[in-house]
Amino acid sequence: MGPEEFRAAGHELIDWIADYRARIPELPVQAQTKPGEVAGKLPRNAPEEAEPFSRLLADLESIVVPGVTQVQHPRYFGWFPANSTLSSALGDLASAGIGALGITWQSAPALTEVEEVVVEWLRELTGLPGSWKGVIQDTASTACLVALLVARERATDYSEVRGGLQAESAPLTVYTTEHAHSSVVKAVALAGFGRDNLRLVGVDPVTYAMRPDELAKVLEEDIKAGHRPAAVVVSVGTTGTTAVDPLAEIVPLAQQYGMWVHIDAAMAGSALLLPEMRWLIDGIEGADSLNWNPHKWLGTLGDCSLLYVADPAYLIRVMSTNPSYLRSAVDGEVTQYRDWGIPLGRRFRALKLWFQLRLDGVEAIRARLRRDLDNARWLAGQVEAAPGWRVLAPVVLQTVVLRHEPAGLDADGLNAHTLAWTDAVNTSGAALVTPTLLDGVWSVRVSIGAENTERSDVEHLWRLLQHAAEAAEAG
Amino acid sequence: MGPEEFRAAGHELIDWIADYRARIPELPVQAQTKPGEVAGKLPRNAPEEAEPFSRLLADLESIVVPGVTQVQHPRYFGWFPANSTLSSALGDLASAGIGALGITWQSAPALTEVEEVVVEWLRELTGLPGSWKGVIQDTASTACLVALLVARERATDYSEVRGGLQAESAPLTVYTTEHAHSSVVKAVALAGFGRDNLRLVGVDPVTYAMRPDELAKVLEEDIKAGHRPAAVVVSVGTTGTTAVDPLAEIVPLAQQYGMWVHIDAAMAGSALLLPEMRWLIDGIEGADSLNWNPHKWLGTLGDCSLLYVADPAYLIRVMSTNPSYLRSAVDGEVTQYRDWGIPLGRRFRALKLWFQLRLDGVEAIRARLRRDLDNARWLAGQVEAAPGWRVLAPVVLQTVVLRHEPAGLDADGLNAHTLAWTDAVNTSGAALVTPTLLDGVWSVRVSIGAENTERSDVEHLWRLLQHAAEAAEAG
Repeated sequence: MGPEEFRAAGHELIDWIADYRARIPELPVQAQTKPGEVAGKLPRNAPEEAEPFSRLLADLESIVVPGVTQVQHPRYFGWFPANSTLSSALGDLASAGIGALGITWQSAPALTEVEEVVVEWLRELTGLPGSWKGVIQDTASTACLVALLVARERATDYSEVRGGLQAESAPLTVYTTEHAHSSVVKAVALAGFGRDNLRLVGVDPVTYAMRPDELAKVLEEDIKAGHRPAAVVVSVGTTGTTAVDPLAEIVPLAQQYGMWVHIDAAMAGSALLLPEMRWLIDGIEGADSLNWNPHKWLGTLGDCSLLYVADPAYLIRVMSTNPSYLRSAVDGEVTQYRDWGIPLGRRFRALKLWFQLRLDGVEAIRARLRRDLDNARWLAGQVEAAPGWRVLAPVVLQTVVLRHEPAGLDADGLNAHTLAWTDAVNTSGAALVTPTLLDGVWSVRVSIGAENTERSDVEHLWRLLQHAAEAAEAG
Repeated sequence: MGPEEFRAAGHELIDWIADYRARIPELPVQAQTKPGEVAGKLPRNAPEEAEPFSRLLADLESIVVPGVTQVQHPRYFGWFPANSTLSSALGDLASAGIGALGITWQSAPALTEVEEVVVEWLRELTGLPGSWKGVIQDTASTACLVALLVARERATDYSEVRGGLQAESAPLTVYTTEHAHSSVVKAVALAGFGRDNLRLVGVDPVTYAMRPDELAKVLEEDIKAGHRPAAVVVSVGTTGTTAVDPLAEIVPLAQQYGMWVHIDAAMAGSALLLPEMRWLIDGIEGADSLNWNPHKWLGTLGDCSLLYVADPAYLIRVMSTNPSYLRSAVDGEVTQYRDWGIPLGRRFRALKLWFQLRLDGVEAIRARLRRDLDNARWLAGQVEAAPGWRVLAPVVLQTVVLRHEPAGLDADGLNAHTLAWTDAVNTSGAALVTPTLLDGVWSVRVSIGAENTERSDVEHLWRLLQHAAEAAEAG
């Protein structure tokens, strides 16, 4: 496709996107698609001949859009916010148009240096220590794996260049809680530690946060048993309830044993743009790495996950490669981001962050985040005041975990009731919330923070929840 | 940013991209940027207030474009092709506009099912076995790591759920050659095998391909020493010389020891669209996984890397997670791509492949690939016929490795000469080629295959190389 065909099709697509975004509030939130329905509408083979652009636009409209849960919808309250701001989409389009190759500084100096500048902007905006350095990863899953790989290698004096993990004698152990994200357990497995060496430290029954006294106890037992504590993954804002592990109390314990402290703030990181929320990471000065996802609440188009480290030398020592065809005369003077993560090649992701911050401005972003925190507090107040309803965890961020508990239901009955009314809400298409197990019982997460969610949408949701629960109760 | 502001800015950006693409031939190929130059032009802090779009466009023009090596340039012959077709850029823009959340089938059924269909289109187009299944990864580096993690776990009967790699007694070993991509060595290190357990099998001195007799010998020695061969990484098209390891002879050896066979065809995979090139993967029926990058020669906007596996059950067993908040009623009936790789969340990458194949058509893509193969054969013929010039490796694909060897130079003199004239070509901005070490001596890779590279551009390059080498020789 040449530039002029692209120009014509591009204008059509821009209009299509603008129209689509404007009519999202009229669409069902949850996709009403059955398994195999989308695939069944597509041809079995790729076309030998070029197709006209109009046919692709028609398929976007009739196949793709109905097949997508509308997470940009103002009544999307599921999982976590997954905002894809249009300002960041423009940055992403610029990245596509330029088509840079990000494999070495020399292949695209601006790709590296815009990333350096933008991650530094966000370091400053989130109040992370001035000496920390950042890099964009795809997701928190990868960032956590990277952190644990580096922790593993630091703890073994870089066994990768010798016999690897399999040649180590005393087992390395990793610490987190059962409320940590599933990707933490996965990262422990992939890094080769083994689940036997993952310790799920006890949590406070009210806040669901890690108990430092429990951590101290488990560490002592492990040391006695000849294990080597290698890393602790601290959740700042868990997925289930946005619980905040007490970093300031965990760090001294970790330092005592030379452990790597990785902070998983995938969701909560956006809140750090608000000075009044910086308490979330009190104690960070003694930690080693922190990761958060601008592609969640902040609203940078995915995938865009920020990994900050106190000292990139650890990353580089584990991740660096230096084949002859990637060398250049300026290697000592520049950042080679290929040595800061798993992939060699990287997309020009910094442009979408750069565009978003400049086109929206930080003040407006902060106002939106504060709006969402207010809305969550408002909803929690309503739920607490309503007979038969309960808020199940402290509302630290923008997520409210709640349950409708009609009198006279046993545990199974309560579970069935919860799943029935949330399913009614979700399948109606009017709003989306996420059921989750908390202390083994089904509860409901209402995660506020879609870009266009206003107070009136939260009020609307609260009416929907009450009606659905009452209808389910009435049978 | 609302839909109407997006519409206005989007139209401006589409025009900017079309204009930019049209004038790429006039730009220097290699960025003329000095370290720190781009960063020095950017403000130290993020803007509190929103900026007008015109200012971003101006910065794209004056800061970003001059700071990027123009890999879409018709005289870009560096590293490997990194084509970002405008058809795939439109698909990527559609993905950004829709802003889907790819964490579970339910969050975006179309994201999963378009991916299933498109990777099946490409399986068929490349002649991979009909039972193999595909998934999009970001890069070949990640895909190789994923394959080696799965190989590790299969070889240890899934140690991840017990003591992990660190509890295994006899060391697992991995096999490849010194010509394998740097990401293979990195993946071995990250997967915890340890470099002591990586075997670099001897290669043929003319083709640079793995010698099966050498592999057999090393395997026997390792078995005798009590090691456990876990995986062999077969390069189909190495980065240095596009050497092709003989898969059909390697597979029976691997099967004898129950090893995982991973095929790294990052570059060569595109060639499989041509039936006459399918010999590259003769023997694949007995292998376990193959990875190639549509974001290279094929021209899908990065990042887009295809990982095919003979049996996804191995992937899923190692990678799956199932937290309560991601469960749904249809889980048994659908593909959950989060269990096919490291990240939980995925971008709607399939759209860019889907758009490219439909808007360009397969026939036109095949014609372009054949054009590039022809051009490489033509250049090799010219080089071989020119006094003082040598082609250093078989031209299997679209890359020609060459050297100008004036009489009377010792080894150091020859290296200095090669680096001098390639540097002259590259810094001139007229074309870009990549110096590489081959058998410890600097040589030059000319990798043909930018989307707009025609025979006249290759002729132009050949004149440039001759002039530069003659000028360097003359001093």
